[in-house]
Amino acid sequence: MHNELLQLLSAIHPADPALRAPAQAHLDDLTKPQGSLGRLEEIALKYVLATGKLDPELSKKKICCFAADHGVAVEGVSAFPAEVTPQMVYNMLSGGAAINVLSRHAGADLAVVDMGVNHDFPDTPGLLKYKVKPGSANMASGPAMSEEDTLKALLRGVSIAYDAYDAGYHILGTGEMGIANTTPATALYAVLLGVPVESITGRGTGIDDERLQHKIEVIQRALAINAARCTAPFETLAALGGYEIAAITGFILGAASRKLPVVVDGFISSAGAVVALKLSPAVEDYLFFSHTSNEQGHRVIMQKLGARPILDLDLRLGEGTGAALAMQMIEASVKIYKEMATFSSAKISEKSAL
Amino acid sequence: MHNELLQLLSAIHPADPALRAPAQAHLDDLTKPQGSLGRLEEIALKYVLATGKLDPELSKKKICCFAADHGVAVEGVSAFPAEVTPQMVYNMLSGGAAINVLSRHAGADLAVVDMGVNHDFPDTPGLLKYKVKPGSANMASGPAMSEEDTLKALLRGVSIAYDAYDAGYHILGTGEMGIANTTPATALYAVLLGVPVESITGRGTGIDDERLQHKIEVIQRALAINAARCTAPFETLAALGGYEIAAITGFILGAASRKLPVVVDGFISSAGAVVALKLSPAVEDYLFFSHTSNEQGHRVIMQKLGARPILDLDLRLGEGTGAALAMQMIEASVKIYKEMATFSSAKISEKSAL
Repeated sequence: MHNELLQLLSAIHPADPALRAPAQAHLDDLTKPQGSLGRLEEIALKYVLATGKLDPELSKKKICCFAADHGVAVEGVSAFPAEVTPQMVYNMLSGGAAINVLSRHAGADLAVVDMGVNHDFPDTPGLLKYKVKPGSANMASGPAMSEEDTLKALLRGVSIAYDAYDAGYHILGTGEMGIANTTPATALYAVLLGVPVESITGRGTGIDDERLQHKIEVIQRALAINAARCTAPFETLAALGGYEIAAITGFILGAASRKLPVVVDGFISSAGAVVALKLSPAVEDYLFFSHTSNEQGHRVIMQKLGARPILDLDLRLGEGTGAALAMQMIEASVKIYKEMATFSSAKISEKSAL
Repeated sequence: MHNELLQLLSAIHPADPALRAPAQAHLDDLTKPQGSLGRLEEIALKYVLATGKLDPELSKKKICCFAADHGVAVEGVSAFPAEVTPQMVYNMLSGGAAINVLSRHAGADLAVVDMGVNHDFPDTPGLLKYKVKPGSANMASGPAMSEEDTLKALLRGVSIAYDAYDAGYHILGTGEMGIANTTPATALYAVLLGVPVESITGRGTGIDDERLQHKIEVIQRALAINAARCTAPFETLAALGGYEIAAITGFILGAASRKLPVVVDGFISSAGAVVALKLSPAVEDYLFFSHTSNEQGHRVIMQKLGARPILDLDLRLGEGTGAALAMQMIEASVKIYKEMATFSSAKISEKSAL
């Protein structure tokens, strides 16, 4: 494996379990029946462990939406033309996309990251220009990216996470935009988790039955032609991924190495998370899966990972929309942990002896 | 039926379906694949229809937490002693309860309403003193409330909703506090929805198997002794309800008559909602069920109502905690509807011809 990647992976450690007992004791002392806030309590506990702080902060929030084009779009796997990728980036930069609305609502800063869009953007506030190439190659006829370019994209994702850490952010969220990118995400799941392609290929932005069948065939062709390259997670990412997915992988790895919790958006972002988890299982301690996507297959993938996402709202848009919404629930959980009165301080009778 | 109640019910009308087509057209023109924001789109549509406004507001939010004691507590159906009801009201008034944290997080104002707590509270900011009686009677040996007192409690709930409407609130949320109140709620479900008591009786704040069995027996005794009184929804509410539940029923009816959307909290609040729905089915158009409670039976009740609550976070605390969290999702939905760019305005290509 590449040296820089090895170095990065060696900097990722599991969360310290020593904080579990005192954090749980604090949760149990809050003025409510024990466990009665259910998943909010689990989330707060995970957040404490991830940050390694018994009194963690959660106010500065950032969502990064990674954008890239995909060579496989020429195969006609999406309902929308590839030109929509840059158009949607412009829409995000002018504040009109769903992720703008929802990150504002969550009080999170938003950065749009051009990792590989087939368009030259002018310098614009809110846009990070980290393009590696103007789109991946068509994975149905060869590798989507070279290993060198994949590493480049991944390490740019890492440095974005480091910059966020240095800027004092407490939590990060992933998002993405890239016409056709459910196709590489599905291919990655099929190889890395050993799931049949048919069982997880969905309609993306909205294709009909015929095109869905075609999409399955394209993915199977991509798996066949790249089979020899898919020897390990990083190599699989290069063969079947995309620049935004590689950046998300790096973003998650970088955040985990800094003990910075990351909220993972939907179907595409979870593919980046799966690559990161395969490279370093300890990453799990820093991940919050935000929602179960309505994109077919995401539920299967979450079950396969043993993950129970926070929300289930039939979203299938991406961009980071699910991450933004879930971030509000995580913030609520941390506030519960930090702001509620305790039984002793509030002079409230404990449970009766039974 | 009592005159005032009949008058109130006659003021509740279904939402005007004429707004459905233009609201849906607007949702479909937003810069995202149609339907890709799933339940957020459904919620926004319901909100538009409920308010009867194509460009609705949602910024002023209020949660009312109705508190009361229950005579049936003497039967030993709860894990906590009855003295916890006033203690928790004080905790809410000093800002340390879960609902304080979560309504602050949601940007919602909170009012705590004493409908029938067995304690005299001093005048305190944030407390509405609407006590009817210092607790209901033991429903296991007779009716919980007289019809007169029930009507009083219900009409006070109505006037709280009217006051909120007059004060310019755009959305209301319900909550409650009352040791032993899963017992009356369960009894109401059993009668009004015809569900077997055993299938919906849960552990409330955390009772063991033995006490759960006892709780089921107490509820069955209450149903038997009050059978002749449970001739219709209002009469059933009087026989088996409680002052906070009656107030929630009125609060919902009052809000619906003003086309003010109401977010319904968990197991207890839903019982108030069921009474309201039985009195006036049109109420449905104004209700958002916030979450599926972890209190056994709530899932059954929601299915029975054909409702799919917004969140599923294993909460079983009440107070309005689920309503506060769901309110943020509703606000997100309405912001999506109001703030996103449209395809035409953002110059984004539509779906390719297939």
